[in-house]
Amino acid sequence: MPEPDIKLRDGRIVRSEEPLNLEMPFETAENFITPTQSFYVRTHFPIPKIDRDAWWLHVEGEVEKPFAINYEQLLELGSRTIPVTLECAGNNRDFLEPKVKGVQWGLGAVGTADWTGVPLSVLLDRAVVRSNACEVILEGADHGLLEDPKSPPGELTFARSVPLEKARHDVLLAYGMNGKDLPPEHGFPVRAIVPGWYAMASIKWLQRIIVSSETFTGYYQTLDYAYWKRRGDLGELTPLSDMQIKAEISRPAQGEAVPRNSNFRVRGAAWTGENEITKVELSTDGGATWSETRLLGTPKQNAWRLWEFDWRTPSKTGKVDLIARATDSDGKTQPIHRDRDRGTYMINHLLPVTVQIS
Amino acid sequence: MPEPDIKLRDGRIVRSEEPLNLEMPFETAENFITPTQSFYVRTHFPIPKIDRDAWWLHVEGEVEKPFAINYEQLLELGSRTIPVTLECAGNNRDFLEPKVKGVQWGLGAVGTADWTGVPLSVLLDRAVVRSNACEVILEGADHGLLEDPKSPPGELTFARSVPLEKARHDVLLAYGMNGKDLPPEHGFPVRAIVPGWYAMASIKWLQRIIVSSETFTGYYQTLDYAYWKRRGDLGELTPLSDMQIKAEISRPAQGEAVPRNSNFRVRGAAWTGENEITKVELSTDGGATWSETRLLGTPKQNAWRLWEFDWRTPSKTGKVDLIARATDSDGKTQPIHRDRDRGTYMINHLLPVTVQIS
Repeated sequence: MPEPDIKLRDGRIVRSEEPLNLEMPFETAENFITPTQSFYVRTHFPIPKIDRDAWWLHVEGEVEKPFAINYEQLLELGSRTIPVTLECAGNNRDFLEPKVKGVQWGLGAVGTADWTGVPLSVLLDRAVVRSNACEVILEGADHGLLEDPKSPPGELTFARSVPLEKARHDVLLAYGMNGKDLPPEHGFPVRAIVPGWYAMASIKWLQRIIVSSETFTGYYQTLDYAYWKRRGDLGELTPLSDMQIKAEISRPAQGEAVPRNSNFRVRGAAWTGENEITKVELSTDGGATWSETRLLGTPKQNAWRLWEFDWRTPSKTGKVDLIARATDSDGKTQPIHRDRDRGTYMINHLLPVTVQIS
Repeated sequence: MPEPDIKLRDGRIVRSEEPLNLEMPFETAENFITPTQSFYVRTHFPIPKIDRDAWWLHVEGEVEKPFAINYEQLLELGSRTIPVTLECAGNNRDFLEPKVKGVQWGLGAVGTADWTGVPLSVLLDRAVVRSNACEVILEGADHGLLEDPKSPPGELTFARSVPLEKARHDVLLAYGMNGKDLPPEHGFPVRAIVPGWYAMASIKWLQRIIVSSETFTGYYQTLDYAYWKRRGDLGELTPLSDMQIKAEISRPAQGEAVPRNSNFRVRGAAWTGENEITKVELSTDGGATWSETRLLGTPKQNAWRLWEFDWRTPSKTGKVDLIARATDSDGKTQPIHRDRDRGTYMINHLLPVTVQIS
């Protein structure tokens, strides 16, 4: 990447036009904060055109005092700004063999932004959540028809739930991205940010918050964005949630020519769900030996950590496989092989970047 | 039915050979008890060959005293015999327009048998269920590979759950069918009978009972044998359970020639989930007017009720649509139109039988 026959828009790889799916070329991931115009875009339906002055966010369901709030009122509430890494649950899908259905993301369906908004807990407290509630459903304004014969008939609206505890703990209703208003493709006027979770939960174009006393089983919670968890022999359909630990190499890029007998600074990023990245190792011999890399900056919860490694390139020309591997504060690291129970999602096994020593 | 190009085996319509799916020609449904050799057969995988003397049924999960019981020990426990109607959740699928995937059942994926066995509650009591338990998973010995790309990878074992309350109330572990041992195609040596539920829950070739503290989300509970229940605009994937109320006409058969100006005894059966069938009406003019039919015998919970109606056939030749409609003790009756949220299952809207007045 960039692949020779790839189409670019504003410097991003066009993975599909309708719906719009744009990927950041990961070799451009040089900064802790991803510029908004480089940030990957994932949509399922046409981008809703929302008039900020006519927008209302409804809070309803298992609450004592359902209400609606408009944009102006939301901005009057106390806000916070946090850096959060968002990764599409299908990031790296293009590396899977055999090929599977879905957007063929390379390395760049991931990015980190500063998100500004109101904690969801503030709205939940105002609505007074009933004691029988266990989940919060977040509903977007994006909707349309699917071709999946197993989808519910008619138009589908994008929605996802989070446990009530998570909703109260750290979910943000963001109206700002990197210090400016959210752009339309990132969820204008307001989107959810669910830190530490794959980004399908960070609902864009938010229009409704439904507090519920039952487990939500909507399409994007079950037939899509789900995987098979094992109970003995039996697979159980389980909604995706936490991001899995992963390190990616940004430089050199896949297929890049690297001069032999020289100093090359290998760079990348690593991230995980709730824990902290404590170590990133690099193998420059396809996984036989590993060296620890330098972690840059300071750890920020729910945001990636950049890393670098000064590599003395081999004296012989030829192909070399570089592999990065992250470890977190729980001692968790990446699997070597693909777990097929994960279907087309949660791809965090070790992936080589092959470079040409020239 | 029987359709002209249909293949019959032992008087049953072969809907598929591998896996074996046999349908009872519904015009042969003359008796309250369906003879075993006429009873429809639904399988998903090859029929397991089970040696009765080597068979063990395991009871495990959220119990204080997990144990296994063999066939001989099971027969020593107190038994009961109950008539229960089993209907495949996809019965009548052949009538859907447009055509949908799945076995193209006509009217005969339904039947009533006397089932003999041990109440599941007896085994649950012996295992001592923990207070956090909420469901009981029933696992069969039938297994194999599916072509569905969304199924869990590798071989799949057929399994389904019932709420603990239902499991304790009336689920039977049956080893006898109509006074004899279960035949292999009906689940030898032991199958579950879940009264009032579609038959996918009445697990055949039972090998394991897992008491669980969580909602089971296996393949046959979610991606198959499920439908979309609405919460406002949002469809929620919901496992099939209770049979929906339905009346079917056995005679005349679809397309049967009926003499004009004569007396013809229209016959059929009607069934529902937990309630009692209280009325079956018949329209002989395509739904314009309705007449009450005679209910035969006495009501038996969870078993169908036969009915008949003495019809004076029209004096003019031509095609006539007969429609039957059932009402239960809750006043519930059948919908006129198909609810598309039900996908390929729970087909109980009013269906005409078209006959030729000759």
